[in-house]
Amino acid sequence: MRLQLTLPLVIAILLASICAAAELPLMPWPSQVSTGPGSLLIDSHFAVSLTGPGATDLRVKRSASRLEERLFRQTGIPQAPGPAPAKASLQIVVEHPKPGIQQYNDDETYHLLITAEKATLTAKEPLGALRGMETFLQLIRASENGFSAPSADITDQPRFPWRGLSLDVSRHFLPVPAIRRTLDGMAAVKLNVLHWHLSDDQGFRAESKLHPLLQNKGSDGLFYTQTELRAVVEYARERGIRVVPEFDIPGHATSWFAGYPQLASGAGPYEIVREPGILLATMDPTKDSTYKFLDAFIGEMAAIFPDAFFHIGGDEVSPKGEWTNNPHITAFMRRNHLKDLAALQAEFNRRVQKIVATHGKRMEGWDEILDPDLPKSIVIQSWRGPKSLAEAAHHGYSGILSSGYYLDLMQPAAQHYAVDPMKGETEALTAEEKKRILGGEAAMWEELATMENIDAKLWPRLAAIAERLWSPETVTDVDSMYRRLEATSRWLELQGIEHRSQPLFMLQRLAGAADIETLAKFAAILEPVKGYARHRNHKYSSLEPYNRLVDSLAPESDAGREFNQTKDRDILRARLTEWRANAEAVLPVLRATTLLSENVPLAERVVELCRRGLDALDSRLAATPFPEPDNKSEILIAFEPGVRRLTGAAAP
Amino acid sequence: MRLQLTLPLVIAILLASICAAAELPLMPWPSQVSTGPGSLLIDSHFAVSLTGPGATDLRVKRSASRLEERLFRQTGIPQAPGPAPAKASLQIVVEHPKPGIQQYNDDETYHLLITAEKATLTAKEPLGALRGMETFLQLIRASENGFSAPSADITDQPRFPWRGLSLDVSRHFLPVPAIRRTLDGMAAVKLNVLHWHLSDDQGFRAESKLHPLLQNKGSDGLFYTQTELRAVVEYARERGIRVVPEFDIPGHATSWFAGYPQLASGAGPYEIVREPGILLATMDPTKDSTYKFLDAFIGEMAAIFPDAFFHIGGDEVSPKGEWTNNPHITAFMRRNHLKDLAALQAEFNRRVQKIVATHGKRMEGWDEILDPDLPKSIVIQSWRGPKSLAEAAHHGYSGILSSGYYLDLMQPAAQHYAVDPMKGETEALTAEEKKRILGGEAAMWEELATMENIDAKLWPRLAAIAERLWSPETVTDVDSMYRRLEATSRWLELQGIEHRSQPLFMLQRLAGAADIETLAKFAAILEPVKGYARHRNHKYSSLEPYNRLVDSLAPESDAGREFNQTKDRDILRARLTEWRANAEAVLPVLRATTLLSENVPLAERVVELCRRGLDALDSRLAATPFPEPDNKSEILIAFEPGVRRLTGAAAP
Repeated sequence: MRLQLTLPLVIAILLASICAAAELPLMPWPSQVSTGPGSLLIDSHFAVSLTGPGATDLRVKRSASRLEERLFRQTGIPQAPGPAPAKASLQIVVEHPKPGIQQYNDDETYHLLITAEKATLTAKEPLGALRGMETFLQLIRASENGFSAPSADITDQPRFPWRGLSLDVSRHFLPVPAIRRTLDGMAAVKLNVLHWHLSDDQGFRAESKLHPLLQNKGSDGLFYTQTELRAVVEYARERGIRVVPEFDIPGHATSWFAGYPQLASGAGPYEIVREPGILLATMDPTKDSTYKFLDAFIGEMAAIFPDAFFHIGGDEVSPKGEWTNNPHITAFMRRNHLKDLAALQAEFNRRVQKIVATHGKRMEGWDEILDPDLPKSIVIQSWRGPKSLAEAAHHGYSGILSSGYYLDLMQPAAQHYAVDPMKGETEALTAEEKKRILGGEAAMWEELATMENIDAKLWPRLAAIAERLWSPETVTDVDSMYRRLEATSRWLELQGIEHRSQPLFMLQRLAGAADIETLAKFAAILEPVKGYARHRNHKYSSLEPYNRLVDSLAPESDAGREFNQTKDRDILRARLTEWRANAEAVLPVLRATTLLSENVPLAERVVELCRRGLDALDSRLAATPFPEPDNKSEILIAFEPGVRRLTGAAAP
Repeated sequence: MRLQLTLPLVIAILLASICAAAELPLMPWPSQVSTGPGSLLIDSHFAVSLTGPGATDLRVKRSASRLEERLFRQTGIPQAPGPAPAKASLQIVVEHPKPGIQQYNDDETYHLLITAEKATLTAKEPLGALRGMETFLQLIRASENGFSAPSADITDQPRFPWRGLSLDVSRHFLPVPAIRRTLDGMAAVKLNVLHWHLSDDQGFRAESKLHPLLQNKGSDGLFYTQTELRAVVEYARERGIRVVPEFDIPGHATSWFAGYPQLASGAGPYEIVREPGILLATMDPTKDSTYKFLDAFIGEMAAIFPDAFFHIGGDEVSPKGEWTNNPHITAFMRRNHLKDLAALQAEFNRRVQKIVATHGKRMEGWDEILDPDLPKSIVIQSWRGPKSLAEAAHHGYSGILSSGYYLDLMQPAAQHYAVDPMKGETEALTAEEKKRILGGEAAMWEELATMENIDAKLWPRLAAIAERLWSPETVTDVDSMYRRLEATSRWLELQGIEHRSQPLFMLQRLAGAADIETLAKFAAILEPVKGYARHRNHKYSSLEPYNRLVDSLAPESDAGREFNQTKDRDILRARLTEWRANAEAVLPVLRATTLLSENVPLAERVVELCRRGLDALDSRLAATPFPEPDNKSEILIAFEPGVRRLTGAAAP
């Protein structure tokens, strides 16, 4: 029998090949891509060559040597020993050197051409070469003929020069290996700023030799030594990532006061805080000794962090805080004609900015620092939204967007993906003003994250934000994003990020001797509640265990999302049947230990939702109202919206 | 309705509770255990106290501090900061110090008493405390009331003082993190010797500063620096593990000759070998310069490895090798009345032994070094079997058994578990002679193992050998061993050993964008072929990729073993039905890439075996002969014996 190539079949085959070509497993998606037939096969003769005046840059050399190691991880093919073959399979050309500290507007453009014979990566400057190497590695996959990279012609450059992650290590400390993994992942998706939130009420995480009580009284012993800080900066630099340290003042500063109560506006004594929230303790802006202390400290840190920017926080000074209740401070305000707390903070910021500038740095801070008396060199990080970003740009200040990119709120990737620094109030800016919008930063606040689940809380969603900040504005197809996010997620795990293995580790611990398959399948249809809802019923302390089922859940359930989107009744039926059986099977596992038994009602509700969904598919009407969730539950059933739609129940 | 406690139910409940108590998740099983009601709950107030004259030992202190970190990994419960509570939950008492280098016969006894209030660990010397801490950690599990250790009274001591792993890093190099993980695992199951096979024909892995061409020409750049060697020794020492280095001479020594051809008995030139086997290149035993070289080198290594023993290999000098063909050597033999090659090697060994002794070490070697002219201080490692071990002991030499413990042969744990150093020819020894059997060493030869699958090839089977060497001779229940091995396997993964995650990583790489569940389920019923069968049809080189399905398989399929053992026809039917469906589902995944397509016939055979098994269960007679396996296949279908039994087919 011969295969009949009917016209629809031919069209289907063509479409399939075009779609496959059009949707390379890349994230962020490049500026321009075209694909051709054929692919570059990866074998043990794969070799990299470096040429051009910029290729001697240590970042390029180390990244190329890491590329070879990472290629081994991705393929398991060892490189042949001995001299490199005459013709390298990946030829990297870096046209110009770019010595010195990485600047926020360094050139990152590159051109990558892959044919069946070889790949050529051309970059103007070292950073472009680093970005292009990540694209090359992302393209390598198990193909029909073995491991290969598809033929492609890619011209690429970032939309925004500032693409970062703001990482809180105060509320939960993250050990250096977790920071390194995070930097690896960031580099993999072309992020270029680690904004390191090193101090807050809950902990002071950087070693000061001038003021050692900062870490000695402010960290429970969980801090980075100066050697470690420097090593992280170097590790980041080799991956084309700037490190901007943040030491949050004058609010969010209790951990400073544990060792140095004289810096505070209150009487003390102070100790580091275990619960989240906006605290009352605030730095005293009226004493010269405060600024002397800061001058020495900022000078010390400026020598460790070479970046041009220094972040002073400046957010959330409580209106009910120590400034209001201290007669010495209110007298100071009257004497200096400071009409309110904002004016007092502005005065503080002006003095701090001068100190920061003395040490050769540009000051960065959250929205609240915006003040017309500050020089235009500062950068505003907006956590409040595009309005404050637009306002800053309008007044001549540079800014970056973080509002909408808070990964700790456990929102789906699509929600962050829809947030664009150039949408909303920023749209009305002039072209000149728009140039001041430098980009954005995802933010991960760590009230509920620990070293055990940080990867799972960051990834893969952070890759979607990275795409928003790198790729052209027109790249907005959510379905394509999710398909590529899945490929990127798998790739990141091959690179050593642990977002897939961490939850399994935690589930295995909870399951004890029980089989974890059932529990893992149960966890796969659940999500943690969104926003700040987990804080509603319990005051979480940094000291308690974060080892429960809710702590091991991925922020977004792929299975749930797919269910909620499909209209295929066979799929709906199959899923509900499968999930009901699994929820019934997981009940004894949950009941076996107090570590899991709090989730019994949840499993029972899963059974009930599945039953209702199946009834609706069979056109059986429900006799009782839809069972509403317990509002104390910290876990959502991810497919609930789909069942509500099926049964005609309103959203809760 | 009230629960009716019928007599059978009461008996069942009693039996269940007794079994649970009798089978604590311990491996190796202790000398004496009794259990009681209740358990010690682990919470954030858990603390360790150290007392007694031996508790200041650095090994004890560091192990105790690691115990706290490992406890966090096992439970996710952070320790409360601040001063330790007045009453520690684990009180460790070490009665005597034992300074200096760890000796093979150091005391390892301990007593561990766990009540609902606290745990008390008493050891005579530091090593016992280390062993007892592992027992304590193994006991902690997710229980009814949270994480807890069951009440127990354990008195424990090893049966043999020498319990090791012989680890080949020549045929495939293992990076330091893999060595550290292996040491962690070894300590966890109370093994106390890492016999580090640092040189062979395929690579010289230790840095020599006196003879740098050893590593520079003999390792492809894959070697341990002296700093790394020292760090590994220290890492091992902190875990109560001695490190015995092996530099294999006069055979298995091609890698020496790559840089120093003058050491060889042939004309050269030499380069490191890529294929396994017994090579012809042999060190020249007739030149004084050889011994001068060895003296300097052994002196250099003796300063790095503090252990009392130094392993010189001595195995497999080829009768067809360079000794036979070199007229200079045959003349030397005549001149010295050396009647054969064995006599020549004995002469070599006598001179080497003197050098080893000069540097303060006792010589160790494989069976072939046994020779009545050597002093009784040497130790013989038997790879040939109990006969040579018995012979050595009879002649006054100490010995350890490795025959039967070769983990690279991919045999089931039960097979190694049945091997006892005191069984076979050793049974006939006198009590005095028996004392010379010091224990045994598992061996992992690395022709087919790489840094990517080493954990999966070692674990959990190594734990079964560890039990054979530690536990009383009477501990031989295979079913119990397998149940505890499963618990130990889960526990080891929580400790950071990667034997469960490595195969998943490799499968994900092969599967590319395809779902790995189906592939993983397929892999779970497969095993690599046994013994040296993989070498039958292909000459494996150390340079080729070990990234195929066969490389990602666990040596032993639990699912296969359980199937082969059960007689429950419902279970047999369920498994066969499930496996057939999965094999059909995996076929398109296998066909999608040349990386997997070699396994298509295997999946088809799985379908066929399932069909035959199901037919037999339905009493349908097979019309055709049993489909025999392709003898070129490198993979076995683990449940095949069960299907053969069902269908009445003979073993292949």
